[in-house]
Amino acid sequence: MNPIDKRLFTDAMRLAATAVSVITTDGAGGRFGVTVSSFCTATADPPQMLACLYAKSPTPPALRANGVFCVNVLERGQRHVADSFAGRIAQWRDDRFACDRWTRLATGAPVLEGAMIALDCRLTNALELSTHIVFVGEVVALASSGGTPLIYADQGYQRLADPGARDVDDLQL
Amino acid sequence: MNPIDKRLFTDAMRLAATAVSVITTDGAGGRFGVTVSSFCTATADPPQMLACLYAKSPTPPALRANGVFCVNVLERGQRHVADSFAGRIAQWRDDRFACDRWTRLATGAPVLEGAMIALDCRLTNALELSTHIVFVGEVVALASSGGTPLIYADQGYQRLADPGARDVDDLQL
Repeated sequence: MNPIDKRLFTDAMRLAATAVSVITTDGAGGRFGVTVSSFCTATADPPQMLACLYAKSPTPPALRANGVFCVNVLERGQRHVADSFAGRIAQWRDDRFACDRWTRLATGAPVLEGAMIALDCRLTNALELSTHIVFVGEVVALASSGGTPLIYADQGYQRLADPGARDVDDLQL
Repeated sequence: MNPIDKRLFTDAMRLAATAVSVITTDGAGGRFGVTVSSFCTATADPPQMLACLYAKSPTPPALRANGVFCVNVLERGQRHVADSFAGRIAQWRDDRFACDRWTRLATGAPVLEGAMIALDCRLTNALELSTHIVFVGEVVALASSGGTPLIYADQGYQRLADPGARDVDDLQL
């Protein structure tokens, strides 16, 4: 069984909805960050997050050297942060962090002020795959400013329907 | 640096939005499936998916034995499938697959008919963490029925705002 064509895969996955986060790191390996949609909770006990980062980008080697990272889960009003760390904003290309304000919690990794949820992690595992590295980290500090999540789907930013518009149909039993 | 309290973590993560999928497997190890929100694209070249499964549930040992799994990404109308594979529907507790119709693609793993995207995978990596196992698989076949994604956030199923309601605010530069 061979893998399917990459184009077929990316075309199909366009429909998929994902949250959006910026993975940041700082320390002796330098300060870097990148926008990712491939991240999730790995375990709840202890709390651990995982994120898949493109191996050839500048963030992974720094993250490894620093041994720490923060998963900044973005709120609907933080599209400019997602765009900056995706390298889409010319004025911030030389300093992506200039797009907004940052603080620190326990590890020293940059924490976005006002992030919906910021999960400050100590690196515990790294799994190298073909083009990406799966980084796993134990959450050692957390900040939550609330809000509603930024969603990426169908090649654009989207948001959840208003709570009043929640699906309340009965199950089709 | 110690991990934060599990309760603090789960409380904060309630805000986070995730897509919903059912991970299925079939073969000599048996037919099993489970609803997960922790899954994502791992790499695009070759196409690989990852999913985090609770190690003590019946699906992981079967998945390992079978060496195959399908990531069935659910559409908005498939809440009953999510509920069945989360063990929340009494009538389907003994046969979760009875909740809907299934087919197969390349690996023999159950493929939900009408899944928004079904990614049929050959297991390529497994990373054991504290309570969960991260399974990575190469996508060897795919089916896409389209639709709009089922989203879980704030302790309930939600959906994306209608396309006309997309955020079109200018960036705050």
